[in-house]
Amino acid sequence: MVRVKLDVFTRLQRIRETSPVVHHLTNWVTIYDCANVVKVLGASPVMAHAREEVAQMTTLAQALVLNIGTLTVDMVESMKIAAQAANARGIPVVLDACGAGATDFRDQKSLELLDAARIGIIKGNASEIARLSGEKVRTKGVDAVEVGLSHLELARSLASHRGCTVVVTGPEDVVADEASAYLVKNGHPLMAHVVGTGCMATSVIGAFAAVEPDLTLAAACGLVCFEVAAECAVQGCLGPGSFKECLYDYLYHLDEEAINRRQKVERCEATISSPMPA
Amino acid sequence: MVRVKLDVFTRLQRIRETSPVVHHLTNWVTIYDCANVVKVLGASPVMAHAREEVAQMTTLAQALVLNIGTLTVDMVESMKIAAQAANARGIPVVLDACGAGATDFRDQKSLELLDAARIGIIKGNASEIARLSGEKVRTKGVDAVEVGLSHLELARSLASHRGCTVVVTGPEDVVADEASAYLVKNGHPLMAHVVGTGCMATSVIGAFAAVEPDLTLAAACGLVCFEVAAECAVQGCLGPGSFKECLYDYLYHLDEEAINRRQKVERCEATISSPMPA
Amino acid sequence: MVRVKLDVFTRLQRIRETSPVVHHLTNWVTIYDCANVVKVLGASPVMAHAREEVAQMTTLAQALVLNIGTLTVDMVESMKIAAQAANARGIPVVLDACGAGATDFRDQKSLELLDAARIGIIKGNASEIARLSGEKVRTKGVDAVEVGLSHLELARSLASHRGCTVVVTGPEDVVADEASAYLVKNGHPLMAHVVGTGCMATSVIGAFAAVEPDLTLAAACGLVCFEVAAECAVQGCLGPGSFKECLYDYLYHLDEEAINRRQKVERCEATISSPMPA
Repeated sequence: MVRVKLDVFTRLQRIRETSPVVHHLTNWVTIYDCANVVKVLGASPVMAHAREEVAQMTTLAQALVLNIGTLTVDMVESMKIAAQAANARGIPVVLDACGAGATDFRDQKSLELLDAARIGIIKGNASEIARLSGEKVRTKGVDAVEVGLSHLELARSLASHRGCTVVVTGPEDVVADEASAYLVKNGHPLMAHVVGTGCMATSVIGAFAAVEPDLTLAAACGLVCFEVAAECAVQGCLGPGSFKECLYDYLYHLDEEAINRRQKVERCEATISSPMPA
Repeated sequence: MVRVKLDVFTRLQRIRETSPVVHHLTNWVTIYDCANVVKVLGASPVMAHAREEVAQMTTLAQALVLNIGTLTVDMVESMKIAAQAANARGIPVVLDACGAGATDFRDQKSLELLDAARIGIIKGNASEIARLSGEKVRTKGVDAVEVGLSHLELARSLASHRGCTVVVTGPEDVVADEASAYLVKNGHPLMAHVVGTGCMATSVIGAFAAVEPDLTLAAACGLVCFEVAAECAVQGCLGPGSFKECLYDYLYHLDEEAINRRQKVERCEATISSPMPA
Repeated sequence: MVRVKLDVFTRLQRIRETSPVVHHLTNWVTIYDCANVVKVLGASPVMAHAREEVAQMTTLAQALVLNIGTLTVDMVESMKIAAQAANARGIPVVLDACGAGATDFRDQKSLELLDAARIGIIKGNASEIARLSGEKVRTKGVDAVEVGLSHLELARSLASHRGCTVVVTGPEDVVADEASAYLVKNGHPLMAHVVGTGCMATSVIGAFAAVEPDLTLAAACGLVCFEVAAECAVQGCLGPGSFKECLYDYLYHLDEEAINRRQKVERCEATISSPMPA
């Protein structure tokens, strides 16, 4: 692992200047916060889920964010249609595997989504990602439990299997594809005491993916941006209630100096084992 | 255009004293804020959308607010039933045409709603109102794009076609029916950086329409009330997160002095062209 | 009525230490606040409503909270499945009868729920509880209207009929089963000016029911905890907007000293009239 400095601010500026549309099919718990975090960042959120319009709506967007937190059969059908439209237009699809592993239904629908379209970035905590990789884990609600593999191994395993970028969140976040990986060490424990910070991080990643074609880099930049703002917000707040309002204030005002002073990112190259010739 | 002073406070007092019920069928993104802004204003919000109960629920209300932000086929069916019940009882119906123009489905359903019942107030940004008027515009998500007509022409065109009040929001808001028009110049640019301010304004208009039978006047008063509170909130906040909390605080405490000192409204009479005799 | 001091803090500590999962099928207006209040308290909220997964999700939980605020036919079917799964596992079910009495549909569905499964705690305002008891009342939206019986009589009547704990909220809250009753005199009038405080109180009761098998005691402790935090929050806020953020901050930091200094609870034993032999 080598300490690196990502140019997060240039990409944030691109979001602020071009205001990309980030289309969401997300859950009913944090749908406001998903939209608002994208708006505060400078992008343009759209939330629409009727199967009759999701494909056309996606053609207006620069990124698509899916979040299965309160999935239903109908919602997943709409997600498939939207994701296929995104694939056809070549815009990135980000999936928050919220709660994967909690029920058989959730696992089955998550895998259906992964099979139905090309997902560019899959994000979850360790147990969610492990379940999508086929590891046997138990999930306690939407909070992760320990699994056998390291987070980096988990991320790489699923990234390799699905040919995408995988984000495993935790006290330190792993962002990995087959070729490379970042470790993002920003953030603050208070974030885990507020509902929605995980979903908001996914939406922020969606906004960065709308302006940065290297999806692994986009995800790492999005996490740094969101978590640096969170660190600033913790200093200005009195608890989890005032924290969230502060978080929006700091995201809105986030400048290059704060990002560069605070970001803690490490990068490692994958040691890809040469496969034996057939 | 002539500068006028609307008696917003007397109507706000009427809301606080009679606490009218404002029934909503709205979107899942801002549903909390729609309810809370009505509550903080002193009215009584009801949010219910099951087709089995919307008609009966509407009979308990003094105004009905419809918002198509996250419309589905089922939701629009419920909206039609509720709007027809509101018509039968003679209570005003307010429609937020959120996202009209973005997809064919949204356009078709918006027009179905307008044809199914008498809508008293239609509210949208320029591109949404243009689309409902039949103007060819493209919509970028839920944000407006430029259209050829002035906002006043747009409002009057649709108001005349549908026989209702039309609100076109923007840096300056136009409120018009066939006979008269108001220009509301209050508000602050920060409002556009927070998700939900548009939907909240519609709900506030619904509360004013519950106590003021002149719907054009009601809409203008509602906008002044909401936007004056927003101006106050901007002064007391640090960014878009703290802004929204401040906005609720100021709306709750809003007094006559602040409204009268800050309101900026102009009124113009329509120059109705005499039609040629047939 | 005798003044008592409940050991609320020991139960709050148990929530913080064991982080019980509280599964919700709730309304779309306050779903975020229901989840967040449980999280801030130290428990683990899960919100999932698809009929295909609610039974399995309930097996991961230590309590189930149902709230009919925005009920539909499908949602009530999912609630029945979840409640029956909770019964089978022996975990408590809490029902917020939000809006009961407003429409025939709502009454019918509420009674269907009560008949389909064993509900441990039913919570509502006076008119909602009266309607579930069969009393003839009219409901104005979701706010209570006066009914003939005292709140204690109302609570006991339904508690006796259904064999459960009943909470009747108001300026003073009554918590009663057939054998005993508590009067909780905490809280502040500002709570009634913010959407969601009632639903949040129900979710807090759900978290206490997850760690305290005496459901009447659990409900009383939950109300004290929530309302003491609300009293503290009122002192630190400027209006209903900042109140809610303060409420989360105070709930998160709530300590034994504040609870014990502020709690105002009375207890009375039921005078059960000996029924005449048949």
